[in-house]
Amino acid sequence: MSDTLSRLAQRILVAAPVVNQASTAQKNSALLAAAQRLQAAGDAILVANTFDVAHAQEQGATTAVIDRLQLNHDKLAAMAQGLVDVAALEDPVGVVTRGWRRPNGLNIRQVRVPLGVVGIIYENRPNVTSDAFALCLKSGNAAFLRGSSGAIQSNIAIAGALRNGLVDGDLPADSMILVEDVTREGAVAFMRQRGVIDCLIPRGGKSLIESILANATVPYVIDGDGNCHVYVDKAADFPMALNIVVNAKTHRTSVCNAAESLVVHVDVADEFLVEVVRAMPMVTFVGDERACQILGDRCALATVDDFGSEFLDYKMSIAVVDDLDGAIRHIRRYSTGHSEAIVTADFAAANRFVAEVDAAAVLVNASTRFVDGGEFGFGAEIGISTQKLHARGPMGLTELTTQKYIIEGNGHIRS
Amino acid sequence: MSDTLSRLAQRILVAAPVVNQASTAQKNSALLAAAQRLQAAGDAILVANTFDVAHAQEQGATTAVIDRLQLNHDKLAAMAQGLVDVAALEDPVGVVTRGWRRPNGLNIRQVRVPLGVVGIIYENRPNVTSDAFALCLKSGNAAFLRGSSGAIQSNIAIAGALRNGLVDGDLPADSMILVEDVTREGAVAFMRQRGVIDCLIPRGGKSLIESILANATVPYVIDGDGNCHVYVDKAADFPMALNIVVNAKTHRTSVCNAAESLVVHVDVADEFLVEVVRAMPMVTFVGDERACQILGDRCALATVDDFGSEFLDYKMSIAVVDDLDGAIRHIRRYSTGHSEAIVTADFAAANRFVAEVDAAAVLVNASTRFVDGGEFGFGAEIGISTQKLHARGPMGLTELTTQKYIIEGNGHIRS
Repeated sequence: MSDTLSRLAQRILVAAPVVNQASTAQKNSALLAAAQRLQAAGDAILVANTFDVAHAQEQGATTAVIDRLQLNHDKLAAMAQGLVDVAALEDPVGVVTRGWRRPNGLNIRQVRVPLGVVGIIYENRPNVTSDAFALCLKSGNAAFLRGSSGAIQSNIAIAGALRNGLVDGDLPADSMILVEDVTREGAVAFMRQRGVIDCLIPRGGKSLIESILANATVPYVIDGDGNCHVYVDKAADFPMALNIVVNAKTHRTSVCNAAESLVVHVDVADEFLVEVVRAMPMVTFVGDERACQILGDRCALATVDDFGSEFLDYKMSIAVVDDLDGAIRHIRRYSTGHSEAIVTADFAAANRFVAEVDAAAVLVNASTRFVDGGEFGFGAEIGISTQKLHARGPMGLTELTTQKYIIEGNGHIRS
Repeated sequence: MSDTLSRLAQRILVAAPVVNQASTAQKNSALLAAAQRLQAAGDAILVANTFDVAHAQEQGATTAVIDRLQLNHDKLAAMAQGLVDVAALEDPVGVVTRGWRRPNGLNIRQVRVPLGVVGIIYENRPNVTSDAFALCLKSGNAAFLRGSSGAIQSNIAIAGALRNGLVDGDLPADSMILVEDVTREGAVAFMRQRGVIDCLIPRGGKSLIESILANATVPYVIDGDGNCHVYVDKAADFPMALNIVVNAKTHRTSVCNAAESLVVHVDVADEFLVEVVRAMPMVTFVGDERACQILGDRCALATVDDFGSEFLDYKMSIAVVDDLDGAIRHIRRYSTGHSEAIVTADFAAANRFVAEVDAAAVLVNASTRFVDGGEFGFGAEIGISTQKLHARGPMGLTELTTQKYIIEGNGHIRS
């Protein structure tokens, strides 16, 4: 198996320099061709998908899992449209990010270039195959994709169509390679392809992240959990705070930028918490002693684990704090460094929160749900980085590039 | 031992938020105080250093190792001046790198913030203790330093002086902690301090890098080898090419930006190679068959290992290539992605080389020796990254920061 992987690795290393150097026009034409190929292969992809869905049903998968896995003509059309949309985005490659002349006359500039080969490990969402392909291609990277066993038939069919699009666009088919070995050992071998994969983006749960930390030798960017807090300050506008908390918690519970925890200033806790539970009858609350005292049987006592949990569900933890310092301390302790919000009308409180809370994104008077590549205007998103190196927060095309220094002299030597 | 390390980790986590939030004035005043403390502790540091030097001599260390290890009043003064110089550099923290307003009125900006805790593992150079301290402090980071056993007495004395400087400057002494456990197991435990170390910068040889790849769970930036090439094109100006090759090879052989390999266009190889060996009588050459044919007994046949080696010595490999494509292919095969140079008067050749060679820095008509934080004008350098994520090339203060998104609304919720 790992022999096969090394052959795939050799093939992608041959293709990568070609796609790394491809012009914007060439990449766009391949994206548009891939969109057509995807549509044309629609029936075959749907047939392949029925095998994956049947297999998932046999395995007793939940409705949510099957929803994500199951394709139809509308979803395929949306995937194809995604390719067209990415073609319309600005190409990050070649952008000069800074440049200067040294006193000795040397000209130095820093230019965005593709990473090379981007590896992505992902779960049972066949649409990631085309989304990841599009973002990698537009940013000039070869895409080395390793989907999960549960979507393998769909992924093979989709990848075949996309590879035909690459050829139509005069780029090597191997600019995108799907790994068909979906074993756990295969995943470990994949994350050890040092010298092949320039950046690995794992999209999955805790066990995948743990496997990356234990096994990966390739550089990676972690798209981690979001235990996001909304802190309602004593100087918050109540209707605004309520709107934001409800939106952050319930607009979509299954996503990493949903709020999982409410932190409330003690001065306003009595009044505000009662309104919060009334506004969200479908939500289960767990809180500290003060929250429970206020809310009675609408709130169970929270454990440390509760405060540390990304529920991804209609569940929310509540902490009552004495002041802004207490809020910052609480968030520092439990934050996963994703997105943290304050609701306040107090300028100084907002500024302190923004400065002292350590997260990819800090928000003032806005829902955590805005921390998203689309909402940022990036046009597309490959994930949301919760690490501090390379990329932090929503990752668009720019985050799929690295930089290169170009230094021009006229015979300069160092003395 | 790892119990001690976890206590140190707890202490640095208490200090880090304070130094992360410190103002530029506060950081500068601590740097200046540390410079004074270092000078004042000079005699004690030199005494401590004699123990390390005596120990190294007992162990039969080479003169080069002892040179790097041994301190004197001049070297101490230079270390103190280094602290003063870093105080004069621009503070990267707080710089807004970009910002925009979304159609819905949300204001988004991206701001530079300290990484948090920077870990550094380094070898027998006691000056790194103060250099690393200075760069970490100026960029608002707590410095978690793990020097080698060979310099432990010197490092303890230096760290004590620097910590006094922190206290003089009203910052927590624990903004800098030196790990005194210098065992291998201690190093491994150090690189597994996930949740404590936000970025680890290993400064050492192959075995350290291998240990990092095998064991580290903290994010890291690798300061790797430099197998740097100079390609002399057929359109090169001969005297310029000769100057650059001699400078890149012999200006300082022990550094990562020294050239290790010469690649020559076949059309000019006969004439140029003869001049090269004449100009560098102290250098040993190993080359491919064509180079050996031209140079006779001044050149031994190179192995694949030779072409892949960073000699760090008066030794150079030579490859004769048919054309620019051959040069790019050769460099792609053997490059460590550090610095690669072309000497040419041909505009198109220069542009192709710059675009197609994949390295942290590519140079046209300049010596590879310029790829250096000081020569770039960064004022100081914590290392030269040969990886593609986060930082690539010389790392100054900016590369010791991460970014944070700040999003301001007026009650924005997502619909």
